Amino acid sequence: MKVLVVHGPNLNLLGRREPDVYGTKTLDDLNRRLNEAAASLGITLDIHQTQHEGEIIELLHGGIGAVSGAIVNPGGYAHTSRAIADAFRAVGYPVVEVHLSNIHGREPWRARSVTAEAAAGVVTGFEHASYVAALHALKTLTEER
Amino acid sequence: MKVLVVHGPNLNLLGRREPDVYGTKTLDDLNRRLNEAAASLGITLDIHQTQHEGEIIELLHGGIGAVSGAIVNPGGYAHTSRAIADAFRAVGYPVVEVHLSNIHGREPWRARSVTAEAAAGVVTGFEHASYVAALHALKTLTEER
Amino acid sequence: MKVLVVHGPNLNLLGRREPDVYGTKTLDDLNRRLNEAAASLGITLDIHQTQHEGEIIELLHGGIGAVSGAIVNPGGYAHTSRAIADAFRAVGYPVVEVHLSNIHGREPWRARSVTAEAAAGVVTGFEHASYVAALHALKTLTEER
Amino acid sequence: MKVLVVHGPNLNLLGRREPDVYGTKTLDDLNRRLNEAAASLGITLDIHQTQHEGEIIELLHGGIGAVSGAIVNPGGYAHTSRAIADAFRAVGYPVVEVHLSNIHGREPWRARSVTAEAAAGVVTGFEHASYVAALHALKTLTEER
Amino acid sequence: MKVLVVHGPNLNLLGRREPDVYGTKTLDDLNRRLNEAAASLGITLDIHQTQHEGEIIELLHGGIGAVSGAIVNPGGYAHTSRAIADAFRAVGYPVVEVHLSNIHGREPWRARSVTAEAAAGVVTGFEHASYVAALHALKTLTEER
Amino acid sequence: MKVLVVHGPNLNLLGRREPDVYGTKTLDDLNRRLNEAAASLGITLDIHQTQHEGEIIELLHGGIGAVSGAIVNPGGYAHTSRAIADAFRAVGYPVVEVHLSNIHGREPWRARSVTAEAAAGVVTGFEHASYVAALHALKTLTEER
Amino acid sequence: MKVLVVHGPNLNLLGRREPDVYGTKTLDDLNRRLNEAAASLGITLDIHQTQHEGEIIELLHGGIGAVSGAIVNPGGYAHTSRAIADAFRAVGYPVVEVHLSNIHGREPWRARSVTAEAAAGVVTGFEHASYVAALHALKTLTEER
Amino acid sequence: MKVLVVHGPNLNLLGRREPDVYGTKTLDDLNRRLNEAAASLGITLDIHQTQHEGEIIELLHGGIGAVSGAIVNPGGYAHTSRAIADAFRAVGYPVVEVHLSNIHGREPWRARSVTAEAAAGVVTGFEHASYVAALHALKTLTEER
Amino acid sequence: MKVLVVHGPNLNLLGRREPDVYGTKTLDDLNRRLNEAAASLGITLDIHQTQHEGEIIELLHGGIGAVSGAIVNPGGYAHTSRAIADAFRAVGYPVVEVHLSNIHGREPWRARSVTAEAAAGVVTGFEHASYVAALHALKTLTEER
Amino acid sequence: MKVLVVHGPNLNLLGRREPDVYGTKTLDDLNRRLNEAAASLGITLDIHQTQHEGEIIELLHGGIGAVSGAIVNPGGYAHTSRAIADAFRAVGYPVVEVHLSNIHGREPWRARSVTAEAAAGVVTGFEHASYVAALHALKTLTEER
Amino acid sequence: MKVLVVHGPNLNLLGRREPDVYGTKTLDDLNRRLNEAAASLGITLDIHQTQHEGEIIELLHGGIGAVSGAIVNPGGYAHTSRAIADAFRAVGYPVVEVHLSNIHGREPWRARSVTAEAAAGVVTGFEHASYVAALHALKTLTEER
Amino acid sequence: MKVLVVHGPNLNLLGRREPDVYGTKTLDDLNRRLNEAAASLGITLDIHQTQHEGEIIELLHGGIGAVSGAIVNPGGYAHTSRAIADAFRAVGYPVVEVHLSNIHGREPWRARSVTAEAAAGVVTGFEHASYVAALHALKTLTEER
Repeated sequence: MKVLVVHGPNLNLLGRREPDVYGTKTLDDLNRRLNEAAASLGITLDIHQTQHEGEIIELLHGGIGAVSGAIVNPGGYAHTSRAIADAFRAVGYPVVEVHLSNIHGREPWRARSVTAEAAAGVVTGFEHASYVAALHALKTLTEER
Repeated sequence: MKVLVVHGPNLNLLGRREPDVYGTKTLDDLNRRLNEAAASLGITLDIHQTQHEGEIIELLHGGIGAVSGAIVNPGGYAHTSRAIADAFRAVGYPVVEVHLSNIHGREPWRARSVTAEAAAGVVTGFEHASYVAALHALKTLTEER
Repeated sequence: MKVLVVHGPNLNLLGRREPDVYGTKTLDDLNRRLNEAAASLGITLDIHQTQHEGEIIELLHGGIGAVSGAIVNPGGYAHTSRAIADAFRAVGYPVVEVHLSNIHGREPWRARSVTAEAAAGVVTGFEHASYVAALHALKTLTEER
Repeated sequence: MKVLVVHGPNLNLLGRREPDVYGTKTLDDLNRRLNEAAASLGITLDIHQTQHEGEIIELLHGGIGAVSGAIVNPGGYAHTSRAIADAFRAVGYPVVEVHLSNIHGREPWRARSVTAEAAAGVVTGFEHASYVAALHALKTLTEER
Repeated sequence: MKVLVVHGPNLNLLGRREPDVYGTKTLDDLNRRLNEAAASLGITLDIHQTQHEGEIIELLHGGIGAVSGAIVNPGGYAHTSRAIADAFRAVGYPVVEVHLSNIHGREPWRARSVTAEAAAGVVTGFEHASYVAALHALKTLTEER
Repeated sequence: MKVLVVHGPNLNLLGRREPDVYGTKTLDDLNRRLNEAAASLGITLDIHQTQHEGEIIELLHGGIGAVSGAIVNPGGYAHTSRAIADAFRAVGYPVVEVHLSNIHGREPWRARSVTAEAAAGVVTGFEHASYVAALHALKTLTEER
Repeated sequence: MKVLVVHGPNLNLLGRREPDVYGTKTLDDLNRRLNEAAASLGITLDIHQTQHEGEIIELLHGGIGAVSGAIVNPGGYAHTSRAIADAFRAVGYPVVEVHLSNIHGREPWRARSVTAEAAAGVVTGFEHASYVAALHALKTLTEER
Repeated sequence: MKVLVVHGPNLNLLGRREPDVYGTKTLDDLNRRLNEAAASLGITLDIHQTQHEGEIIELLHGGIGAVSGAIVNPGGYAHTSRAIADAFRAVGYPVVEVHLSNIHGREPWRARSVTAEAAAGVVTGFEHASYVAALHALKTLTEER
Repeated sequence: MKVLVVHGPNLNLLGRREPDVYGTKTLDDLNRRLNEAAASLGITLDIHQTQHEGEIIELLHGGIGAVSGAIVNPGGYAHTSRAIADAFRAVGYPVVEVHLSNIHGREPWRARSVTAEAAAGVVTGFEHASYVAALHALKTLTEER
Repeated sequence: MKVLVVHGPNLNLLGRREPDVYGTKTLDDLNRRLNEAAASLGITLDIHQTQHEGEIIELLHGGIGAVSGAIVNPGGYAHTSRAIADAFRAVGYPVVEVHLSNIHGREPWRARSVTAEAAAGVVTGFEHASYVAALHALKTLTEER
Repeated sequence: MKVLVVHGPNLNLLGRREPDVYGTKTLDDLNRRLNEAAASLGITLDIHQTQHEGEIIELLHGGIGAVSGAIVNPGGYAHTSRAIADAFRAVGYPVVEVHLSNIHGREPWRARSVTAEAAAGVVTGFEHASYVAALHALKTLTEER
Repeated sequence: MKVLVVHGPNLNLLGRREPDVYGTKTLDDLNRRLNEAAASLGITLDIHQTQHEGEIIELLHGGIGAVSGAIVNPGGYAHTSRAIADAFRAVGYPVVEVHLSNIHGREPWRARSVTAEAAAGVVTGFEHASYVAALHALKTLTEER
């Protein structure tokens, strides 16, 4: 089972960007922990980071026929990108949206994710554990539905 | 590690209530699967179901000093109950909110959860796997933060 | 044919509470008139009054397999209770929502009933006759659809 | 006792227009059933259908001094016509608004009826039985208030 | 100088319709007083009353080349009729909108007149004197601009 | 192939009404050009103009069984008429909504057309060419779907 | 009969301030014309201009027992001043609100006057003729009610 | 003079729940101070705490004929409970709503209390002194009106 | 202990202005009762009344270093004055906002006080007793916090 | 006459993405049909597809001095991209916005296109025929204005 | 070149009022620094501070014919004062609005300045440097446009 | 001191794009004037222009450790890009947002900049002088805070 992971805009700064909100782990730390969790579940990961809305769409399209699911942290694009949401709907495999901080517990506009409307499900608020839990959700959902 | 699980209103009808939305597993099936996942993580569960907003608050208060975290599916109360949200904030241990269906992908009012504002995090959209992933999130968050 | 009747919060004060709005008949008067109308239609009634949102849900669940329909006056819960609305959807038999006063002709927030969204239909504005008309609607709808 | 019945715009297409929403009975079927119910209640009906907002107002004015009440299905005009609502208020006899489908259970804009604000009461969601129940409501309200 | 006067829907009931809001003068009384005031200003009036939105538009079109201005009480159509507003803009002569009661001092929706957006000006709140003042405004504006 | 064309309120004033917005062509010019385009596509047109909302509905009903499609410019009724929208849904043949000016590029309220919600499609902003393009759209859609 | 006239903020710049909107007459021209009209109606005027919200309130209070009515152009305060509106309600004599330009035909926020909610009536859009018409309205209303 | 005091949901945690917002006094401290103040005013108190919306209503009903007034802190129910508000209106004696923190100075949704709409008055922001001041208000209002 | 008392716009008309809303006591009556209550609490009052927003700010600034707290009834300015709210925040001593009538129980806009956002607390709905209760709240809060 | 055609995000998946909404024709089918129609009108097409908002802007800029008009399907960017709308306004040649499905007949947010505000006109709802009709509109508008 | 500088309400407390938001410089410090910057640009300043909305308008009117531009910090009046905005439009010389803190980065209501709508431009967020930058903007704009 | 300057989408068309709104200076003119001003302040500039949201983020990230501040004109992205706003917050150095025209004085949606929420400050409305003033603000703020 192969899973696409896409880290959206500004996530390359993880660990140094507002650490009280996003934690002190870097993106490398996060990816290492994620690969570890994936390995224990028999999952291979294909991990990317980009600042470009269009590239997130291209990565999702690229996953058609190649992956069983995707975990996407759309960052700031979550709140406006109808184009990414359309890609979530178009690719045919389940896309899980994740956020490091709890989007419901901050500014009102953060609670509204338009990409989440098109996701299979959402995990939000557990820092790096959001990604780990998303892997488990994807695995369980796929195998036990 | 002990975790409180609270199933909110109408969840006793699981499996027979709008199965295309909420799946065909009954609440007993769900609890069985949940105990299994908890056992493998070294977690003991204390599971309850109630239709009463006030009782959800009492169960949460009861967990003070007794549990390390809680998983709560507030059902329809998620969208209005400031009182339950206040309880989430008051108890001092992390509360994870879960939903079976993806609350972002249905009617607009479902995307807005006022209890989620006060939760540690939210897992939504993976049917019974929402609870399983929540357990993993709670475990990982607690041990690796 | 058996029909569940649930009078929601504050309806026990009927006749003495804002009589210019809700009329001078007491709840006993109303129930007597209702039983009379039911009898003439060959319907048996199971009548309850409660102040508790959770109890309204329990009464509705209790009707599964026992009644052919329900008439519910959710009182103030009509305007916020997504949990009761979920119960309307879950029970599988038709639920008719009734109001004594015309909810469209008073404060703007009263015109919006979230439970009505999940009801089979609504009768509002005819004082005790709202219940009588609801019985006729339920009878006619069931027999002639 | 004489009652005016006004079927608003597009109701002449009843039975062939979106039958899953509005049922398969034609307007003639409906009127037949309605006359039957009226007869059993000792009520004479004066039934009209029109596409014109202005004509609905004229029919209502025409009822002054001639009828004891009216049953009006304003169709699409329910959601905007302040002029019809003003007529409801002006005629002096009780006007019952009816809808075939439950206006609260469809698109958000349908739940808002501006004519209902000026009606004596509303019956919505019981297909042809909405009209039948309205007759009973009008009869009971008039005789027992 | 000739002026078109159009009384909109329900104004034929003036004097008997909600007299505490609209006064006890009938439409005939109003027209008599209006003709008197017009005569003293050297103005001829062409007065109409209709319940039909479309007829208000036709009357306004008919005034092109025939009148120097119009006084229109759109009644309930004031709050929604973009079509009448378009006619106000299209006819080329100044149209004064009048209301008997003060539309700003009642329900919030009455304060918003979409036809007023396209009028030359508005006089509201002076009962029959609204029309009299409108005549003076039209006369003064035309002669002294 | 026969197509119904309905010009809504105020369109009879075309060419003299706000020419900077709606162009200098009269309605006769427009109809001539439209018949020409229709002829070249093997289409017969049945053209009407009316100020009455109810008459637009009657014309649409009249097209049942007689036309393959309709082109309707609802004018100001586009922004409020749920009744015309219901007729669009009820008639069973495709209705194309057209506007001379681009409704999205003017006042905010013009961008919202409630009749467009029920149309097969919309062409807006090309003056008389909106109608011509609508004919091509209707023809192509019908033949190549 | 004595009438208080209050010109609100910026009206001292009349004639030189945005003349395409407010006309080329100065405040002196306006007052001269107003005194003339008042004289012909047997009315004495007490005219003031101020930039201060508090002073408008003081002038209105000063009119108690001294004037039969007031004509107030609240300028920009019309859109926010609940304090002036409270004064309109408190003084006991009729206050007519006037505006030079048609407040309904400009930016959306101008159409909303909170002081108008408490006025006896409003005259808007006739430049200096708004004041003249207001005098006639006040006179007619007072004498013929 | 006897006064009912109802502490709503989560107030049992007072002193340990978000002490920077709600202070460090426990509910027992508060009740002690309250009884002291009541005694000095010749008032007897009947004090309750509950998490249940329905029980707040039952306590209020129980006060009919037994108390001269009530002091209620509805906690989170203040922002949604139309049912409690209806009870405030129904009981016939004055109900004072109190809050420990200033509901106007926190999140926007806290400033809106729907129960306050039906209260005699509100005291908010003075921690335990809110209750003390409410006692004085109730006493003064009752004796000096 | 010295306390500043500021009565805002229109309060000088107390007793004669809408007595059914604001009571029949005059401002002098109120001040007398207030001085009496203050004396019994060992508080000296410095009482002012003004119609001017700017003067309320100046009075508040004047209290810096001179008073221990203030009681302000901002009247109509409560609903819009960000400038007075800024003064509440700037002065450094606690400011209690009072209203004679219950601002939550009247028009929707009255329930929203922007000055209350910056107050220490609010007492609303007890007529003159609002001021008396505010004195007690200020005293208790100051001494027992 | 040369026309730029830009297919926005996700349109490369046409034919396999939600075929019940967007039809079964692929993007190649669509382009073939479009070239055919263009040829018959003496128009040369320059066709592009991209997922990147910035690239749509670059393509539009590239058309300055090179094309007579453009047909753009902005896909999901239609609902948020002020930057593309600014490009529509900046390029100086007419840009026609097209959509395959009727944006007015789906979710409320789809009916609002911010790019359409800056377009010459819009064609929506005719699947591939939207593009064909747009070509005719562009041709007719250009030649006959 | 002479420039009017108006410091609005509460700015006299600068340096002691919420120093974490507004900085520790006093108004005297600010004015000294401002005069220094003005001198180096060959500009003379006319500096005022007032709490009165009406006085800000009077100061602006006083600048007509006397100054080349103005720098105004409207403080809390920025968010509501249509009267000051009207003065900005009326005076004929460019008015620059300045704020010490970034109005876009605080509460939502602060981001909305109605006076800014009528300003030549706005500088916000640079503490005392906002004024310095405004001087440079005014100078550059005037000389190089 | 080095400062990054980023011109957002469509700014390459400066001077030829809507010159009445954005002026007649080209981007080269603007950059020349900007370098001149920077030189006189001892600042080195690193200037870029791009249509890509993602590239603006990359440029900002690139500035970490390399520049003391940035001046960004986000063009149309200002109104929606939460991703750029997140970058403003993440980079650690002050970012000044500039606009050529006054965003507060045009369409309502332009007054709302979501990127401005995360900027150090904003300068808007002075055409090229907005950039010049921003340089002064950045310099003064950095040196004198």
